[in-house]
Amino acid sequence: MAILSELATEVLIPIAGIIGIVFAVVQWVLVSKVKLSPAAAAAGGSKNGGYGDYLIEEEEGLNDHNVVVKCAEIQNAISEGATSFLFTEYQYVGIFMSIFAVVIFLFLGSVEGFSTKSQPCTYSKDKMCKPALFTALFSTVSFLLGAITSLVSGFLGMKIATYANARTTLEARKGVGKAFITAFRSGAVMGFLLASSGLVVLYITINVFKLYYGEDWEGLFESITGYGLGGSSMALFGRVGGGIYTKAADVGADLVGKVERNIPEDDPRNPAVIADNVGDNVGDIAGMGSDLFGSYAESSCAALVVASISSFGINHDFTGMCYPLLVSSVGIIVCLITTLFATDFFEVKAVNEIEPALKKQLVISTALMTVGLAIISWLALPAKFTIFNFGTQKEVSNWGLFFCVAIGLWAGLIIGFVTEYYTSNAYSPVQDVADSCRTGAATNVIFGLALGYKSVIIPIFAIALSIYVSFSIAAMYGIAVAALGMLSTIATGLAIDAYGPISDNAGAKKKKNTTCKKTTILQGFAIGSAALVSLALFGAFVSRAGVQVVDVLSPKVFIGLIVGAMLPYWFSAMTMKSVGSAALKMVEEVRRQFNSIPGLMEGTAKPDYATCVKISTDASIKEMIPPGALVMLTPLIVGTLFGVETLSGVLAGALVSGVQIAISASNTGGAWDNAKKYIEAGASEHARTLGPKGSDCHKAAVIGDTIGDPLKDTSGPSLNILIKLMAVESLVFAPFFATHGGLLFKLF
Amino acid sequence: MAILSELATEVLIPIAGIIGIVFAVVQWVLVSKVKLSPAAAAAGGSKNGGYGDYLIEEEEGLNDHNVVVKCAEIQNAISEGATSFLFTEYQYVGIFMSIFAVVIFLFLGSVEGFSTKSQPCTYSKDKMCKPALFTALFSTVSFLLGAITSLVSGFLGMKIATYANARTTLEARKGVGKAFITAFRSGAVMGFLLASSGLVVLYITINVFKLYYGEDWEGLFESITGYGLGGSSMALFGRVGGGIYTKAADVGADLVGKVERNIPEDDPRNPAVIADNVGDNVGDIAGMGSDLFGSYAESSCAALVVASISSFGINHDFTGMCYPLLVSSVGIIVCLITTLFATDFFEVKAVNEIEPALKKQLVISTALMTVGLAIISWLALPAKFTIFNFGTQKEVSNWGLFFCVAIGLWAGLIIGFVTEYYTSNAYSPVQDVADSCRTGAATNVIFGLALGYKSVIIPIFAIALSIYVSFSIAAMYGIAVAALGMLSTIATGLAIDAYGPISDNAGAKKKKNTTCKKTTILQGFAIGSAALVSLALFGAFVSRAGVQVVDVLSPKVFIGLIVGAMLPYWFSAMTMKSVGSAALKMVEEVRRQFNSIPGLMEGTAKPDYATCVKISTDASIKEMIPPGALVMLTPLIVGTLFGVETLSGVLAGALVSGVQIAISASNTGGAWDNAKKYIEAGASEHARTLGPKGSDCHKAAVIGDTIGDPLKDTSGPSLNILIKLMAVESLVFAPFFATHGGLLFKLF
Repeated sequence: MAILSELATEVLIPIAGIIGIVFAVVQWVLVSKVKLSPAAAAAGGSKNGGYGDYLIEEEEGLNDHNVVVKCAEIQNAISEGATSFLFTEYQYVGIFMSIFAVVIFLFLGSVEGFSTKSQPCTYSKDKMCKPALFTALFSTVSFLLGAITSLVSGFLGMKIATYANARTTLEARKGVGKAFITAFRSGAVMGFLLASSGLVVLYITINVFKLYYGEDWEGLFESITGYGLGGSSMALFGRVGGGIYTKAADVGADLVGKVERNIPEDDPRNPAVIADNVGDNVGDIAGMGSDLFGSYAESSCAALVVASISSFGINHDFTGMCYPLLVSSVGIIVCLITTLFATDFFEVKAVNEIEPALKKQLVISTALMTVGLAIISWLALPAKFTIFNFGTQKEVSNWGLFFCVAIGLWAGLIIGFVTEYYTSNAYSPVQDVADSCRTGAATNVIFGLALGYKSVIIPIFAIALSIYVSFSIAAMYGIAVAALGMLSTIATGLAIDAYGPISDNAGAKKKKNTTCKKTTILQGFAIGSAALVSLALFGAFVSRAGVQVVDVLSPKVFIGLIVGAMLPYWFSAMTMKSVGSAALKMVEEVRRQFNSIPGLMEGTAKPDYATCVKISTDASIKEMIPPGALVMLTPLIVGTLFGVETLSGVLAGALVSGVQIAISASNTGGAWDNAKKYIEAGASEHARTLGPKGSDCHKAAVIGDTIGDPLKDTSGPSLNILIKLMAVESLVFAPFFATHGGLLFKLF
Repeated sequence: MAILSELATEVLIPIAGIIGIVFAVVQWVLVSKVKLSPAAAAAGGSKNGGYGDYLIEEEEGLNDHNVVVKCAEIQNAISEGATSFLFTEYQYVGIFMSIFAVVIFLFLGSVEGFSTKSQPCTYSKDKMCKPALFTALFSTVSFLLGAITSLVSGFLGMKIATYANARTTLEARKGVGKAFITAFRSGAVMGFLLASSGLVVLYITINVFKLYYGEDWEGLFESITGYGLGGSSMALFGRVGGGIYTKAADVGADLVGKVERNIPEDDPRNPAVIADNVGDNVGDIAGMGSDLFGSYAESSCAALVVASISSFGINHDFTGMCYPLLVSSVGIIVCLITTLFATDFFEVKAVNEIEPALKKQLVISTALMTVGLAIISWLALPAKFTIFNFGTQKEVSNWGLFFCVAIGLWAGLIIGFVTEYYTSNAYSPVQDVADSCRTGAATNVIFGLALGYKSVIIPIFAIALSIYVSFSIAAMYGIAVAALGMLSTIATGLAIDAYGPISDNAGAKKKKNTTCKKTTILQGFAIGSAALVSLALFGAFVSRAGVQVVDVLSPKVFIGLIVGAMLPYWFSAMTMKSVGSAALKMVEEVRRQFNSIPGLMEGTAKPDYATCVKISTDASIKEMIPPGALVMLTPLIVGTLFGVETLSGVLAGALVSGVQIAISASNTGGAWDNAKKYIEAGASEHARTLGPKGSDCHKAAVIGDTIGDPLKDTSGPSLNILIKLMAVESLVFAPFFATHGGLLFKLF
């Protein structure tokens, strides 16, 4: 048996979770010390001169008092806009979730005809398990819990981000170091809150459900999978709704502001600027938060459900079963130490030190995590155990499992860096794209698309290698823990990622833009982990549905495979078109305001921000329904009508096709974004030959950037959720499909 | 046994082939009756007034004599350029083919250690088959035959097209009807020559090989698969090389000519105009010809190889085995009758009648073909027979098999029409894309990409349905004959398709453009049939390699699947980047000529066409090697190092992912092309609000069109070949992989 006792496990996990939450609160307090009142700002302002490099240059004619008041004003507008949008969104999503909760209960309850009698277990026919009706009930409860946790995480993250916006701006006047720490701390609040609350809620749920299930691990962890489904469903609407919101506003604002009126990005004279900034918070931060939370919840659920039918469950080895949660606990502690490196041990003094500092964070957390993983694998796992492998049991050693988690962790790092290489303007790929702007927008787009396609190669090899190794060592459980390994440094990843939009927004407060580039490392993580997670869920699904072989040479499977591979295209078509249509409406409104409000261009009249916010809100609520329905209904329809074999094909097809589009769309968009920034910044000899702002090259780059917006922030990232959500939904409904599925084939 | 005797089969097939060839020659003679000499043209000119609608308006100051001389001059330049390019290309491809022929011989010869003794057959262990060494030799011979047939077909097609160019132009002055018939006849020459020569060469090869193999059908048809590989390899280089050639020139010509200098498309003052027109012939016509020839050869081979190990082969039922060839024979006769409807029975009087006339061709040929199929299925097949189904024999009836072919045929029609719906400016999708140009190039691109993604849905469902039905009825043989059904109207399809570039080129002779749109129906056919063909080849490969199950739940297969799904992206990245880089060079050269040649813009000096031709030639030869190597080497490397299971995964992954990108890329490009033409033509109230030429909307549309060029004419169509070629190569090398493959897994 393992060295770590059951009691120690029961204590360690909540402690790690609480430490994470406390740490998040501490960071929050530190951020809130930056006062949004003139007196404090003036005091802060007097410290000027400590650093030679400023993120924001003072404008003439604006004294400190005005800056602070203006900051507070804009912060309020953004915060109110974001809150009001999220509440509207939650109302609609709430209705949907309630209906879906009923569907889950009815479908799963019907598996044993709503009987309240105990039944023989699925895998150990000699034992008795709790009735399906109660598992249906508990699945519904954990579904709602997952949705609520995801919702709260996203909402708090957004609140923190908007709260931090103004403070970062003010600190920016004191120098890069201060601004960096403030922005980074705000990101850390989000990261730690999300990772810790996910862990704590899951832990509590397991322990409460255990009161009923006792030692029926199969039933317990089957009902827990609802948690992943809830988290991921919420993430879908967050990503799609937020993505459409932010990009409709962004594209609309850019097309009139930058292209037609030639005013800078995020200029407060642009009527769509508030909607754009609201969008950054609801789309990028809340969306990414929910997305990664979903991945985390799902990979934990996939691992737990497989563990329950492996030797851990058979031998009632609670510590062994909780290995996924222990990995996440270690992750929180490791990320905490890593964060201290950024905020307390080192100091960032210049803009060009920010990116290396962020990258260093990733490397440090990965290295520390490897050590942490080795320790926890040694402590929590027996030296030898068996893992369920599609009907048989496969022997695995604790070091083998450590290797599975570690390969996921390091693959994540590689994917993150490759993403960075292809999307950062410090390297030749983006510089080539920028260079192609010389011959106009068309070559820019051709080169950008080619770059995105090319950027798929190494991540796919990294994912394939992780899959092969972890699959060979520990079957689907290996894949699930590899995904957890990739996600174990989630808190650091989120801190790095949230830094981008916060500083972007901070820059928008004043007419000068910050020159910092947005990192795209986390996008790589999100996609890579989504691929592993959905494969793990897929494995759990086929295990639960009793499928032993998914044979490509069977027509049922093959048509699933080809239709599944088509779904990401269908989904992208919907989301891209939605952004396009909403942007057209936004353009008309912004044009109307510029033409009809006198003094708007001169800065003497205030634009009507609210109408633009309304356009984005209405569009995103209306347009998120069809893609949402596509993702949520496909597994239900395919499973019910065509059965588990075709559904397996659909999941595999969507996975292998979706991951490619997701990576290429994200990176193409990221590259165009940074190619434009490269030309604007003019930091090198080469960049200056392409610029300055307003040159033909720059105009071509802006067109690329605008096209990239929906690719990188709407359709690309939503695809992560598509592949995960379809898999987790199939897993939750697996008992139903296995019993009642395949109606169409049964009829003919 | 079947009603049709072996003798009748032996007679019918060559007769159909010869009729096709004779018909092609007759069409050729009719086209060549249009004289490129001033006297005849003057005579023709006097007939003016017969029709009220002209494709080309007479320009003032140019008399008939000048027009004819100019036409002849330009036709010569295009013809010379195309010939010289193809010869250069063939030199390089020739070297490659020779090396590859040696590889085939050595790899296949090594299967039984170059032994010259007969061996037990793979499927009927009690019988003796010819030694692998001789099958290696015959495979090599049929590989070279396939390559040469493909080469000759492409070359002749190109010759005919350039020959017809000038004649179509001259006829255009006499009215739409005449021009239509001339252009259509030229297309028919290509279509019938290709379909018939493919059939005749295959027929002769089978009969010659039979002299050696006798009744060893397994060995005979295994060696015949080399024919498909040869045809497809040639097609790969044709498509990729030609695609890069044509689009480098096109993009380069457009970027300077249309965008910077504001001169019309295909203006003779543009130095890249000849290269562009040469490209249309070597890329679109020769490329498409080789591509479809490849599909045809491969689906025949896939069907034949499965037939040889089914009851047809076991019972030595030669007529049954030749069913695929009989289907093609019927196809030639049906297309011949269909063509007469276009050229002799009906008359096209106005430009807007062209498209309906072309569509009517498709419907007529499909309807007639269904009848023809029913007859030949009744005559050539026994009422009941069995088909090899991954180790077992499956019973099939002749009407079941008829249904397989028919469903492929009709699915092709549906795919063709959906393609047309999404890419023709007569329907709302393209009109919406045109409308989005109001807000600039960015929204145009976003809407265009969304359109391409959306256009995938119905074709995939059509393909999935055909696969399910034909797979369920007759396993992989069903898929192969479904593909043949889709391709049976190939001659009509090619005639329709070749019509586009010919009229395009004809329009280029004079400054006025023809207003006809390019049909994209055949692109749909090419992709749909490629999907079916590669699945059939995949099935034949797994059968030949002795794989019984391709289980997605095996890590070996899954990594193959995900890496395979990545290959089309890698391939597209290469081809897109190649076009982009070559276009940049072209732009610089065209700019240089406009800046340094005095009188060029005024039309008093001649541009230096030859340098532009050289840039395109060099670029395409150099750049076709990496993507070519990727496609040709992947199956060899994967099969040798990882074995048949992983290779099966790679093939399935590439197929399900590649078909989506191919469809979306082709349709996105097609839609942009026609959105631009829609604005230019200004044929409706709506179109006029977007135009005229040179308006901001039009400029945005031109950017989309330019981006679409490499998508629709280089990377999109090349993907057809990627998925087919990898599959046929795997099939040819299957005995080697089954014996010596999977080195890496054997080592560890």
